[in-house]
Amino acid sequence: MADEMFCPPEEGAPSQAPDAYAAAGVDIAAGNRAVALYKDVTSAWRHPGQLDAIGGFGGLFRVPGEEGRALVGSADGVGTKILIAAEMRRYGSVGADLVNHCVNDILVVNATPLFFLDYLAVGKLDPAVAAEIVRGCYEACRANNCALLGGETAEMPGLYAEGHFDLAGTIVGIVDTAAVPSPDDVQPGDAIVGLPSRGLHTNGYTLARKLIPPEEYAQPFDGTTYGDALLAGHPSYYNEVRAIQRVAKVKAMSHITGGGLLENVPRTLPGGVKAIFEQSRWEIPALFRELCERGKLQHEERYRTFNMGIGYTLIVPLADAPKAVAAVPGAKVIGWIEERKPEEAQVTVHPAR
Amino acid sequence: MADEMFCPPEEGAPSQAPDAYAAAGVDIAAGNRAVALYKDVTSAWRHPGQLDAIGGFGGLFRVPGEEGRALVGSADGVGTKILIAAEMRRYGSVGADLVNHCVNDILVVNATPLFFLDYLAVGKLDPAVAAEIVRGCYEACRANNCALLGGETAEMPGLYAEGHFDLAGTIVGIVDTAAVPSPDDVQPGDAIVGLPSRGLHTNGYTLARKLIPPEEYAQPFDGTTYGDALLAGHPSYYNEVRAIQRVAKVKAMSHITGGGLLENVPRTLPGGVKAIFEQSRWEIPALFRELCERGKLQHEERYRTFNMGIGYTLIVPLADAPKAVAAVPGAKVIGWIEERKPEEAQVTVHPAR
Repeated sequence: MADEMFCPPEEGAPSQAPDAYAAAGVDIAAGNRAVALYKDVTSAWRHPGQLDAIGGFGGLFRVPGEEGRALVGSADGVGTKILIAAEMRRYGSVGADLVNHCVNDILVVNATPLFFLDYLAVGKLDPAVAAEIVRGCYEACRANNCALLGGETAEMPGLYAEGHFDLAGTIVGIVDTAAVPSPDDVQPGDAIVGLPSRGLHTNGYTLARKLIPPEEYAQPFDGTTYGDALLAGHPSYYNEVRAIQRVAKVKAMSHITGGGLLENVPRTLPGGVKAIFEQSRWEIPALFRELCERGKLQHEERYRTFNMGIGYTLIVPLADAPKAVAAVPGAKVIGWIEERKPEEAQVTVHPAR
Repeated sequence: MADEMFCPPEEGAPSQAPDAYAAAGVDIAAGNRAVALYKDVTSAWRHPGQLDAIGGFGGLFRVPGEEGRALVGSADGVGTKILIAAEMRRYGSVGADLVNHCVNDILVVNATPLFFLDYLAVGKLDPAVAAEIVRGCYEACRANNCALLGGETAEMPGLYAEGHFDLAGTIVGIVDTAAVPSPDDVQPGDAIVGLPSRGLHTNGYTLARKLIPPEEYAQPFDGTTYGDALLAGHPSYYNEVRAIQRVAKVKAMSHITGGGLLENVPRTLPGGVKAIFEQSRWEIPALFRELCERGKLQHEERYRTFNMGIGYTLIVPLADAPKAVAAVPGAKVIGWIEERKPEEAQVTVHPAR
């Protein structure tokens, strides 16, 4: 696995640019070039405390003076989901989206959250709005038993329009290095367990905003409204993953963020295997069906831009799969691991018939 | 000392709003209201690993399973200095500004940096520009023996104008809890040692940008240009502070950020003392004199908005002061500690005659 220090822009991470996404203003190729340049400019020196990170979901740093434990750090933003939150003046949920996103990222290396710090930047500071955003961070921190250790609020007229804001955050967790999943254990025949997503989570919003304009946010959709469906919360998978780990051997995990199943699952796979998903094994939620139709998205494009109903994946021995799915409501076996020839794709999603 | 989890907006933190700053678009009173609301919304629960933080420069979190060590986290942004960098297309220095700012913040509690994570948000991703910004972070991390553990680059058309970007970061350090300075040791008669600033560092830019418009950036000023003077780097004081600690007992420290000497020095002072600065003891750099003249800033306003030539302060016993200033070029005794009556200000700066 590459020791990928910087994640590509969250708004998609593919190696081939999906046309619809590029047209929405997100340049995937530029993201990949930036990541390559980051590697160049940071290659001359590495702190001896840094450990190889698996898949780049989080960076590992040895606890000073200890052999057996590492701190895990990960930084993230909410992406353009905040533009929908700003448009709808709904500020309570984006903080929780961000914290849960961060918790899931470091969970991939099995880390337990310790603390989180937020960065909130606004064009014009409205204390009540800012407090609502921070409350969202705080409540999600509390639910994940993670300290909200601090933060920074910056008022920057000239950079952000009035009513606009940006929200980012950094989480730090801890893990016994012996408990970091070793993707080399993954072998043909293993099952892939998927945990259901609740919506777009924090990815694909630049395209989604083009396809569903603000005028439609209040309109009814699938038992709710378009706006509410778009703002559905990004859940933490911490408790679900721990429940599965109690009954099954978990060999590798992926948090399905920008880049979807196609880009995130390979981040923690060894080169000699491939992941095959059978889309008939789970229901594509209505919002994704709607977005794919409106955007006339091709099969690959769908699975690179959106999570398509799967928020987190775990690879377990086939024999453990029944116990794993029984441990968490909604968990399903959605695919399996096969041997891979060098020229083959690392992930294939077979469409439902 | 208040356990201030969130710093007020970096662009100034006073309790009374300076008129010029407010006119420049930064609402200090709103910042204070936001901080008060943050305390409310986060008061119901606190992670047992959190320790009381001194002055809120960084948050302390006990290393799990250990009594004697704490992790120290701090998040920050560069503020509107980035608008000047964007205007001048000079991207190499803002990353270092941010890292050094963070290093200094946790140095106040005596922490040694472990790792840093950046958050870079852009309207349109230019890979070369992004790599130049990350290179600045990386080189400053290396100079501070701090890992650049990861980061996030987000392309967000619709939130940031093309050519605009925002940069924030989070640092994590470690400290022996017995080595955290105890401000209660501070007593009347102690000396205040000041370390010289190199410019505005990362504070006061919203006002500075109003007073020195972009058309003047290329014009000569004080042996350089206005633009270069405005972008002068925010230094790390790590080596200087360690050099002083080797020869003097350091009782308390302050990083002079938003709020200047008037707001930052009290953050690590016990209530029964006050800090008296004698401005005749150091030279006000030309850029500050120019800004104060152009903005017709009153005495208090100057020392709340800008660092006025002092980037970091250390309180030492008077007997140790000569050794302390001898240890670091440019270090000066700039004031002292006196007994304080409850109604008196915690900081007074006596103007030079």
